[in-house]
Amino acid sequence: MAATRLYLDWNATAPLHQAARGAMLRAMDIQGNPNSVHGEGRAARAAVEAARRQVASLTGAAPAHVVFTSGATEAANMVLTPEFRMGRTPLAVSHLYVSAVEHPAVREGGRFPKERIGEIPVTSGGMIDLTALEAVLSAHDKASGLPMVAIMLANNETGILQPVDEAAKLVQAAGGIFVVDAVQAAGRVAIDVEAIGADFLIVSSHKIGGPKGAGALISRGEVLMPKPLIHGGGQEKGHRSGTENVLAIIGFGAAAEAALVDFDGRNARIGALRDRLEEGMRLAAPDIIIHGKGGARVPNTSFFTLPGLKSETGQIAFDLEGVAISAGSACSSGKVGESHVLVAMGCDPKLGALRISLGPTTTEADVDRAIAALARIVGRRKLAGAAA
Amino acid sequence: MAATRLYLDWNATAPLHQAARGAMLRAMDIQGNPNSVHGEGRAARAAVEAARRQVASLTGAAPAHVVFTSGATEAANMVLTPEFRMGRTPLAVSHLYVSAVEHPAVREGGRFPKERIGEIPVTSGGMIDLTALEAVLSAHDKASGLPMVAIMLANNETGILQPVDEAAKLVQAAGGIFVVDAVQAAGRVAIDVEAIGADFLIVSSHKIGGPKGAGALISRGEVLMPKPLIHGGGQEKGHRSGTENVLAIIGFGAAAEAALVDFDGRNARIGALRDRLEEGMRLAAPDIIIHGKGGARVPNTSFFTLPGLKSETGQIAFDLEGVAISAGSACSSGKVGESHVLVAMGCDPKLGALRISLGPTTTEADVDRAIAALARIVGRRKLAGAAA
Repeated sequence: MAATRLYLDWNATAPLHQAARGAMLRAMDIQGNPNSVHGEGRAARAAVEAARRQVASLTGAAPAHVVFTSGATEAANMVLTPEFRMGRTPLAVSHLYVSAVEHPAVREGGRFPKERIGEIPVTSGGMIDLTALEAVLSAHDKASGLPMVAIMLANNETGILQPVDEAAKLVQAAGGIFVVDAVQAAGRVAIDVEAIGADFLIVSSHKIGGPKGAGALISRGEVLMPKPLIHGGGQEKGHRSGTENVLAIIGFGAAAEAALVDFDGRNARIGALRDRLEEGMRLAAPDIIIHGKGGARVPNTSFFTLPGLKSETGQIAFDLEGVAISAGSACSSGKVGESHVLVAMGCDPKLGALRISLGPTTTEADVDRAIAALARIVGRRKLAGAAA
Repeated sequence: MAATRLYLDWNATAPLHQAARGAMLRAMDIQGNPNSVHGEGRAARAAVEAARRQVASLTGAAPAHVVFTSGATEAANMVLTPEFRMGRTPLAVSHLYVSAVEHPAVREGGRFPKERIGEIPVTSGGMIDLTALEAVLSAHDKASGLPMVAIMLANNETGILQPVDEAAKLVQAAGGIFVVDAVQAAGRVAIDVEAIGADFLIVSSHKIGGPKGAGALISRGEVLMPKPLIHGGGQEKGHRSGTENVLAIIGFGAAAEAALVDFDGRNARIGALRDRLEEGMRLAAPDIIIHGKGGARVPNTSFFTLPGLKSETGQIAFDLEGVAISAGSACSSGKVGESHVLVAMGCDPKLGALRISLGPTTTEADVDRAIAALARIVGRRKLAGAAA
């Protein structure tokens, strides 16, 4: 194994940002429970509310519209439910429609029974088929309840950006509820819950440099809210019970604030590094297929197929070169299955694909090292092929 | 406000234990997602599994029977459900019976509809009425589904220990599922899931000196499991999806391990401090009512009423003296309501009550300071009464 490791799997999880680390170190001395009324409790409460403002800023939301959860998966399970309330009035949602490339946390459909979850196809370019969405919404029978639509802002595997603004207009016109999974987009493209026209956004701390264990469900207003998933002491205004994860929330807030610093400059630099990576990989392996290259993507992600190289084999080969990359998403324990994203895009999933995802601390030297590793892996494959 | 603060509200949340802090500081450099197969992912996975063994040890469970959650409230919502599986066979639970003194996270009944939640009364001594439990179980109609019973091992307000072993026998005889909330007992009395005869235990990290944001649902076996509350990527063997809260889990594990060090000695010292506190308080305020004093309690908790002193007023007075204590539990944001525990014990809840809870770092000097604070508060009240 190489002496120094190179981590290029930022979409699986980002290393802890210095700002988050510093904020968490300081916060380790907070003794109280934010629900206690004594001084120690009030100090914890103040820290949680400061983090709420920081996370709100990242998404153009009002702090009061941020509900902290244990992560994006919980937030998805919370919002994807047939049972809503508009103020005090119950509101029934009869069907959930999700894009075919959603993360499993959304694709599983939360509290909707399987038979009430529909899928919206994507084009071969990996973008949601808006005509199909429109057709699904006009076929929806509103007498049984409202439709809910969930579309991710950026895909976790390909990095492809979805036309959520246009989708929002269609959902609004159909009187539905629109949920946008912004987990992989946060910090990489500007996000504004109002501008998108989403009723709900889902964000995760550990994808933006905060710690694992915190996420948020962000709403555009506070009248329309889902039935709570977790009941109990009534924290988060009754929307999510359980003692707040103070340390992780503080780290999440600090990472959200840091994500807004030098936003354009940082992402332009990361985008240039990704271009350098893809150019280098293409020169090393001319038959490489880079998925979604033609369209709009987040700047840090490259998802590619090397014909003849299985994704598991490729990932292990990179790991042995000291470079941590991914074969698709890191969604479930050690599972390396076929990519449902490739299937949805009409590619042969047996081709397999690898994902390299960069972060704010990635350098040109790192990118060049990844290219060199790929060149060696591809070279050995050719030699083995020639010998066979 | 006093120059140095004194924190005596360990039942609301324990300050971070040095062992947990140290483990978390080291773990901040773990870069990977435990679900990634590369070296960084495997390092994160190894740390999570080490913590699983530590938490298992605290409760006499097999590591494979520990499912990490975001906290005890989530664990309660996960296990309190009508939908179970025995292996691959669905198993229906028709009713949930909870003791009248359970924490709101359990009393709310998770995924059971309100009309299928029954209450088991407690005696005036604050202990569950086993005769009433027996009657409830014999009246239960098994044709509609199994009964589930949830009883806490130690009450969060009074510290009173419940006769869970005897309750377990009754529930087993009735063929029911027995859930024990061990949140306030962990680290304070020895816990063994087998010896108790519980099907499920609930524990929380932040009550034993770990960070907030982690908890566990611990099962006696792995065949009988509840329908997952949070779906998605299939983490925790499919029982609880979402990227593991690596840092908090590591801190939880370290705190669990630390809790087993000098267990008897520590708890004997804390118990002696609690006796010193109660003796001192009684001398300063002879009309004090100490709830549950006659029975078995965890060693760190004192729950008492000072006749004529409202609990809110008392708590604020202690806070101004620099001493953080609680008026009942810190379960929901700033809410100071009547204690359902006092009501269940047949006390007039208008009396109000205060809770002082000690921890491993509490000293005799701390206890004496709390007694002196109480003496001043009671003295001022008498003066004000005399002047009126």
